[in-house]
Amino acid sequence: MIIDIAAHVMLPKYKERLYKYSHKFPTEKAVQDKRPLLTDYEARMEKLAKYGNIVQVITTTMPPIEEIVEPKEAVDLARLCNDEMAELVAKYPKYFIGAVANLPLNNIDASLEEAERAIKELGFKGVQIYTRVNGRPLSSDYLMPLYKLMAEYDLPIWIHPMRSSNQPDYPTETISYNQIFSIYGWPYDTTAAMVRLVFAGIFEKFPNIKFITHHFGGMVPFYADRAFVHWNNGLERLGTDHFPGLTKHPIEYLKMFYADTATNGNSTHS
Amino acid sequence: MIIDIAAHVMLPKYKERLYKYSHKFPTEKAVQDKRPLLTDYEARMEKLAKYGNIVQVITTTMPPIEEIVEPKEAVDLARLCNDEMAELVAKYPKYFIGAVANLPLNNIDASLEEAERAIKELGFKGVQIYTRVNGRPLSSDYLMPLYKLMAEYDLPIWIHPMRSSNQPDYPTETISYNQIFSIYGWPYDTTAAMVRLVFAGIFEKFPNIKFITHHFGGMVPFYADRAFVHWNNGLERLGTDHFPGLTKHPIEYLKMFYADTATNGNSTHS
Repeated sequence: MIIDIAAHVMLPKYKERLYKYSHKFPTEKAVQDKRPLLTDYEARMEKLAKYGNIVQVITTTMPPIEEIVEPKEAVDLARLCNDEMAELVAKYPKYFIGAVANLPLNNIDASLEEAERAIKELGFKGVQIYTRVNGRPLSSDYLMPLYKLMAEYDLPIWIHPMRSSNQPDYPTETISYNQIFSIYGWPYDTTAAMVRLVFAGIFEKFPNIKFITHHFGGMVPFYADRAFVHWNNGLERLGTDHFPGLTKHPIEYLKMFYADTATNGNSTHS
Repeated sequence: MIIDIAAHVMLPKYKERLYKYSHKFPTEKAVQDKRPLLTDYEARMEKLAKYGNIVQVITTTMPPIEEIVEPKEAVDLARLCNDEMAELVAKYPKYFIGAVANLPLNNIDASLEEAERAIKELGFKGVQIYTRVNGRPLSSDYLMPLYKLMAEYDLPIWIHPMRSSNQPDYPTETISYNQIFSIYGWPYDTTAAMVRLVFAGIFEKFPNIKFITHHFGGMVPFYADRAFVHWNNGLERLGTDHFPGLTKHPIEYLKMFYADTATNGNSTHS
């Protein structure tokens, strides 16, 4: 049996309410409008049935609600979203074996409450965050209570990339062209998120914490030796064996992340 | 025999004059001050002699002069730099078999003149540019006369990454932390430069043009299938077989770049 641990959905009731704000996420809307199976779970199950041996853990797709609506509406949207995912899992356990909570991360207290509700009442398997939370890195103190909670429950945190075409690649421009922001920017942002978590000492503070990254851990596996050598140069300049707050080489912590294998094929195109 | 086609130097006379402005490139200075062999070519030759079978094509290391000084001073600095590299090649051909021209790219006319002088009078093997030229992408019209010239001479253009720690990874910050900008940002910027050249139709305009990228072509080889699939989605949205101005799939042009193998070891760290 194949377990797809990061199957994106945007279920009907959530979509209807979120799309009231769709002018705020035109890029995501354009992509999602071409992907009806995000919403049409019956067509999805028909497709899954053809394979026969695949089950899915569902996660709700972009945008991050905290970037779209105010905190109060974000709380309501997250609850609606998680309840709807829970219903689907309850109704079709043959196809959907679990769900990952969507959180209203412009309100950390409400996010903690919703995470606990999703885990304890809805039986969710973890929570999802994005590679930046309202512009903050994942090493931000703001997120520490969430990491603490998830370490206590011993359940994973899914990290989804987040970068839009409105983030330019050059200082003389205002947008990113040629899909560079998503093809290459997403792995870059996944990598930056992982590195910042490592240097914040997350794995020292919460030794059992589990992060699941998308797309094979971003650039990390492909640049392992480059990172190793460059950080060694950094340690040489500092004149110490370890970076502040760490007891191991950064590369060792990077090995502690989990990753899916969604690389769109082999790593080389023939 | 091993030919190192991108051996960085910062020779003494050039360094002395450039370092009058070293307050403008503190990050690069900090790295270079730890690398005396960039300047001390006699110590470099001693080291090379130990291996016995290595020769070098020399290129001048960062920063790009056009980001440091005004156009007139940039022209003088580039000439001084190229003359000094030419002297070294003339004096020690056993170790240094060629050089790549440094250009004052805040003055495109002077850059064309200096490129021609370096090629015709100094016997240089090509020119070096950075992944951004004064903030512009390499697809900028500003650079087309240089590409035309190099295609006419049938000599390559070296593309060196350029991103500093003052480019933040998150909108809430002002710098990049944990060496992310260089370890991962350089391959990202190399990739962005390549993609922008492809979509500008450079290989259609100048079919024989040759670009040499650093670090194994950035992220391109590792994300070939991801890029292929995502651009296919883009073509599906456009409803066309090819992107405007191209006659092939973008992935085919990406195969036309040359690359060095400076990956600091294997792609995976054991």
